[in-house]
Amino acid sequence: MSDRESSISRTSRIEADYLLETPVDPRAALEAMAGEQSSGTFVSLPAETPELKARAAARVESFEILEQVGDPSLPGSIHAENGYRRVLATLSWPLANLGPSLPNLVATVAGGLFELKQLSGLRILDLRVPDEFAATYSGPAFGVAGTRRLSGVEGRPLIGTIIKPNVGLDASETAELAQSMFEAGIDFIKDDELQADGAACPFSERAGSVMKKLNEYSDRFGRKPMYAINITGDLDQMRRRHDQVVNLGGTCVMVSLNSVGLVGMIELRKHCQLPIHAHRNGWGYLSRHPLLGWSFAAWQKLWRIVGVDHLHVNGLGNKFCESDESVIESARTCLSPLFDSKPCTVMPVFSSAQTARQVPATFDALGSADLIFAAGGGIHGHPDGPAAGVLKIRRAWEKAMKAAN
Amino acid sequence: MSDRESSISRTSRIEADYLLETPVDPRAALEAMAGEQSSGTFVSLPAETPELKARAAARVESFEILEQVGDPSLPGSIHAENGYRRVLATLSWPLANLGPSLPNLVATVAGGLFELKQLSGLRILDLRVPDEFAATYSGPAFGVAGTRRLSGVEGRPLIGTIIKPNVGLDASETAELAQSMFEAGIDFIKDDELQADGAACPFSERAGSVMKKLNEYSDRFGRKPMYAINITGDLDQMRRRHDQVVNLGGTCVMVSLNSVGLVGMIELRKHCQLPIHAHRNGWGYLSRHPLLGWSFAAWQKLWRIVGVDHLHVNGLGNKFCESDESVIESARTCLSPLFDSKPCTVMPVFSSAQTARQVPATFDALGSADLIFAAGGGIHGHPDGPAAGVLKIRRAWEKAMKAAN
Repeated sequence: MSDRESSISRTSRIEADYLLETPVDPRAALEAMAGEQSSGTFVSLPAETPELKARAAARVESFEILEQVGDPSLPGSIHAENGYRRVLATLSWPLANLGPSLPNLVATVAGGLFELKQLSGLRILDLRVPDEFAATYSGPAFGVAGTRRLSGVEGRPLIGTIIKPNVGLDASETAELAQSMFEAGIDFIKDDELQADGAACPFSERAGSVMKKLNEYSDRFGRKPMYAINITGDLDQMRRRHDQVVNLGGTCVMVSLNSVGLVGMIELRKHCQLPIHAHRNGWGYLSRHPLLGWSFAAWQKLWRIVGVDHLHVNGLGNKFCESDESVIESARTCLSPLFDSKPCTVMPVFSSAQTARQVPATFDALGSADLIFAAGGGIHGHPDGPAAGVLKIRRAWEKAMKAAN
Repeated sequence: MSDRESSISRTSRIEADYLLETPVDPRAALEAMAGEQSSGTFVSLPAETPELKARAAARVESFEILEQVGDPSLPGSIHAENGYRRVLATLSWPLANLGPSLPNLVATVAGGLFELKQLSGLRILDLRVPDEFAATYSGPAFGVAGTRRLSGVEGRPLIGTIIKPNVGLDASETAELAQSMFEAGIDFIKDDELQADGAACPFSERAGSVMKKLNEYSDRFGRKPMYAINITGDLDQMRRRHDQVVNLGGTCVMVSLNSVGLVGMIELRKHCQLPIHAHRNGWGYLSRHPLLGWSFAAWQKLWRIVGVDHLHVNGLGNKFCESDESVIESARTCLSPLFDSKPCTVMPVFSSAQTARQVPATFDALGSADLIFAAGGGIHGHPDGPAAGVLKIRRAWEKAMKAAN
């Protein structure tokens, strides 16, 4: 299993690991999956020769039978007389079936599989792709080092915050709130994903107002916190907004990945001159059932190959349903190299109910300070004001890192 | 409920209907949802004034408590002492929060909600958006009427087929297979979603070879079946491939929606001069659990507003997990007007194990012949050859339609 679990690609085939649950013989279920996603059909056809199968068929590389359960996790499967077996398996495809194309990779590893009657559960756990993907797509232009360079923060996490309330503030109110955060010593500030270009707070006004305050602050104090301004929109809008941010002296743009989709992100990456702060909102509908959808390990690789620079991973003791273990696993995977020649590592963004309290455990578990630690209420709502909130979190990180040395 | 269920937009707010399951008081769960997706924060902040809430807050428009269950459908929620209640609810947002932007619509109605601890299940059932969305996006350029005009098929479904084996045939083998289908009398032929531009069957060669056969056939017999060639790829690739198809005299392009994503599809639609055959592969990971993800009714509206022309809906007695009832509901929704001023109706594509056997029930349930009826094995594998397979399906439709009159 250790080779399979490595995130370094050493394969000339595309490989995907799955957790599945099946009412039928596991080998038959896996062969149905491989057939459905390559040369097979449900009726054997004259053109489906052994030579063709050898050339184009998806292969079941390995599988391991886990526990058996009495009830199916998902509806719609064939009824099992003797329970439903859970299986870990790896399938592979020849690169020549699709070429190094991310949209077609998604169609291949996740296209027609999740609706199969032979399955009562299916989750894609991991992906490994040949180096041709690294050569085709840009990967992150900034990542950890570029983010540190632009923000001027070395040797510790960037302490960040979110503009809250999410929506309802106009551009000048947003700018005032942002200014109070700069003055509180924040390293990083981001729009909420609900804030883009509504009439109540238009993008141009918000970007102009906040950047004016940010530039004034930067001129005065010689440090420039990073402002991840949400440019999510249609492609022309995103490119135009990106250019506005560049012209205003901004150093980051934020995008909602699931709203934009792969092709939009690939295009934005081609155009982009700033770090891309990638928000994963919508992640729940792709992942919340443990026997359906995508694991973060598989999903995040798509966006790292495209070339985002920061990726949200939730936080310890978060207000959402995710376990601490899962959060740390996600953050680790962001910092693990993807290709030998091109690591594509990105900065994990911890957020959701984060305060100084979560700092020691976060550092203990991750063993790295290469992250953005974003706190909302813990900073905006600190009883002694936001500067005290920022300082408390910063001190907690210094203490945790010192204790480790 | 009848107004809520109408797919015609008459609202100046954005509305979304949800099925949720909650361990807490339903009203508290709904207020958490509304707060999370608008002005709220989990810590009350100084800037969060009543005026701001009145301007920007999401509203719980209505809710109806359904059954109670003993166990949570999804893990990670707060533990309930007294069971988990299922609720139908409608939330709404001011358009001014986001503007008529499809990517930001997705972030708003489906962004941060699916991971809430107050929920042990959440599915988005339907969406209604103001007319500004119809004005912003193109909608289908061809739909039913344009597809009929280009294919020359009136008054009955287009009888279609899929190139199978999915992958493994080279360009000239694909063209020979396609030719045999044209000669068998097919109206519509599509690539498999696994076939795009792999080295084993490059796009340009495939498009060139198949279109040569198709043009020869068309010159000779005066009818031109529609060939939905899969152009899925990065944006430049899709635009280039589209132009190739136009230059070769093709009349349709096919795209995998979930692989491309919203922004890519919006861009392709701007460029496209041909009907867009929209493949929904990957739909299972968005929908298979009944208390998670997206209903087809909500999801399909996004793509119709963008402007696809054909949309896959599976078929009766399909090889996948979907019920016949759900298939028919999906097909009906494709044919129901979306906006008063702009119906955006699209042609539903029935496929998966379809033969003449499913025809009477399909017509009975749908009450319309405005569809593409695609059969794979039932045509390629017919014992008397593909012409007999096509004829049998066509006769079955004629008989079903005659019986109804």
